[in-house]
Amino acid sequence: MKIKNRITELFEIEFPIIQAGMVWVSGWKLASAVSNCGGLGLIGAGSMKPDLLVEHIQKCRNATSKNFGVNIPLLRKDAEELIDVVIHEKVKVVFTSAGHPGKFIEKLKANKIKVVHVVSNVSQGMKAESVGCDGIVGEGVEAGGHNGKDELTTFCLIPQLAENISVPVIAAGGIASGKGILAALSLGAEAVQIGTLFASSIESSANQSYKASIVKSNDRDTILLLRKLGPTRMLKNLWTKTAEQYELNGADETELKNLVGEKRERLGIFEGDTENGMLEAGQCAGLINSIDSVEKIFKKLIFDFDSQLNHLKNLS
Amino acid sequence: MKIKNRITELFEIEFPIIQAGMVWVSGWKLASAVSNCGGLGLIGAGSMKPDLLVEHIQKCRNATSKNFGVNIPLLRKDAEELIDVVIHEKVKVVFTSAGHPGKFIEKLKANKIKVVHVVSNVSQGMKAESVGCDGIVGEGVEAGGHNGKDELTTFCLIPQLAENISVPVIAAGGIASGKGILAALSLGAEAVQIGTLFASSIESSANQSYKASIVKSNDRDTILLLRKLGPTRMLKNLWTKTAEQYELNGADETELKNLVGEKRERLGIFEGDTENGMLEAGQCAGLINSIDSVEKIFKKLIFDFDSQLNHLKNLS
Repeated sequence: MKIKNRITELFEIEFPIIQAGMVWVSGWKLASAVSNCGGLGLIGAGSMKPDLLVEHIQKCRNATSKNFGVNIPLLRKDAEELIDVVIHEKVKVVFTSAGHPGKFIEKLKANKIKVVHVVSNVSQGMKAESVGCDGIVGEGVEAGGHNGKDELTTFCLIPQLAENISVPVIAAGGIASGKGILAALSLGAEAVQIGTLFASSIESSANQSYKASIVKSNDRDTILLLRKLGPTRMLKNLWTKTAEQYELNGADETELKNLVGEKRERLGIFEGDTENGMLEAGQCAGLINSIDSVEKIFKKLIFDFDSQLNHLKNLS
Repeated sequence: MKIKNRITELFEIEFPIIQAGMVWVSGWKLASAVSNCGGLGLIGAGSMKPDLLVEHIQKCRNATSKNFGVNIPLLRKDAEELIDVVIHEKVKVVFTSAGHPGKFIEKLKANKIKVVHVVSNVSQGMKAESVGCDGIVGEGVEAGGHNGKDELTTFCLIPQLAENISVPVIAAGGIASGKGILAALSLGAEAVQIGTLFASSIESSANQSYKASIVKSNDRDTILLLRKLGPTRMLKNLWTKTAEQYELNGADETELKNLVGEKRERLGIFEGDTENGMLEAGQCAGLINSIDSVEKIFKKLIFDFDSQLNHLKNLS
């Protein structure tokens, strides 16, 4: 899988594998482990205050000499403070999501930071390109956590992005194996962003119970809920049964907001309340059958990718 | 793309491309054109009475010396009559969907018919295998028309099926290009079933206005509705706006059934009422930009597949 393309060159990485920045999951430990294995690790700033982000960036730098990045959700009220942190700490790569890609891009680019924006449809992708992003992540609705309201799947989103956009496309959503990476490259992506698989890794800062829930889940164990607030994919549990019933009965935004309440992601992912918490995870959870180190995950992804590519080569 | 695998051998076809059996779309003309190009054409019996099916089978046989099949939705009240037709007419391949795969399988196998069942999750796939199906179609939620209630995407469904099932898996949902075929094979499928792309072809019996609607649609122009009846994907139009509002308000099954009424698929697909009809189509509609002959479609699929496979070969 030693591939040379625009993404591996942009981030100076060995493999076209990016670990998604995830709340309560991807601190310095996970990000540095991924970068040390030849991928691009991302610190997920979504669940961090600026001070904590500084700490994670510094620890990450001590743990790896390789490139790593930070994911910043632009809808955060203190997004600009987080942006200032990454500039001050001389982080070289920023992934932005959940907001207008042009919001801080001039500032980031003025500091020679590579900027990638996460999108869920073609027009968002074209907008991200037009404001000067160096690449885009196209995230399909099979992804864990927050998704775009159009519910485009990875299989349909990636080729339509690749056809309409000149900057490189990174595929996200549903990728948890080397075969998935090969499929994403077949569809026109130049790299993949992997979430749930890394969330279940030893180096992930998620609760052990959350990781165990991913491991024991099968193909039908995630559900997309909260469409009126913003579609969110999570593992089914006691809480999702209630939430699903609310939606079937036509609950409005206010009712749903009240039902979600505060810190439900933290409760599930970080504190490990697997029945009342929100356990964000992707539809590929059924493909994950053990809690492994990042190193073991990389070895498996690469072996699986290379074997399947050889298989395809020999088909015709 | 000249591939030898279990599917190409099972159906005696040159390319691992199967044309989906679709209501109001796939009569003898489309099915024979696909078979003549080296794929497997399927007559969609879903919108045919037994007499009409006899006529289509006979015309298809006159139009091609190659193998073709018939798709039979098992929920049809007269499904057994349709089964008797295919046996009497010595059709060699039957794809069943929407019902229990074991219902008529002994009768079909006793007549040496190859049977493939369409599934949307792993347990359905395992059931289809256990009753003796020769293969299964795994259909992701990006597919046009009726979908499984679990809303598994092609990217997640196919590898999980391939991992749990021994008979060959055919990928459906979201495939409208050679890159898509390569991605499906990367994920572990041995062939693809393509719907919307063939529905838009010259040989499709759908209305010209329906075909034009597919051509002009973009990535966000389909919607999955009627979840309480059975999730169905269609192009957005005047009617879907109403249906969407019903669902957002929590409409129950009876209200939805009344809203759909009778023959709304026929109205949209066959009669061409693009505002009030149901225009079943897949999320890959945005990739389709012209109404082409089946021959031209095959040439493009094969060229695109071969080019992308060469591209992957040269990456590493």
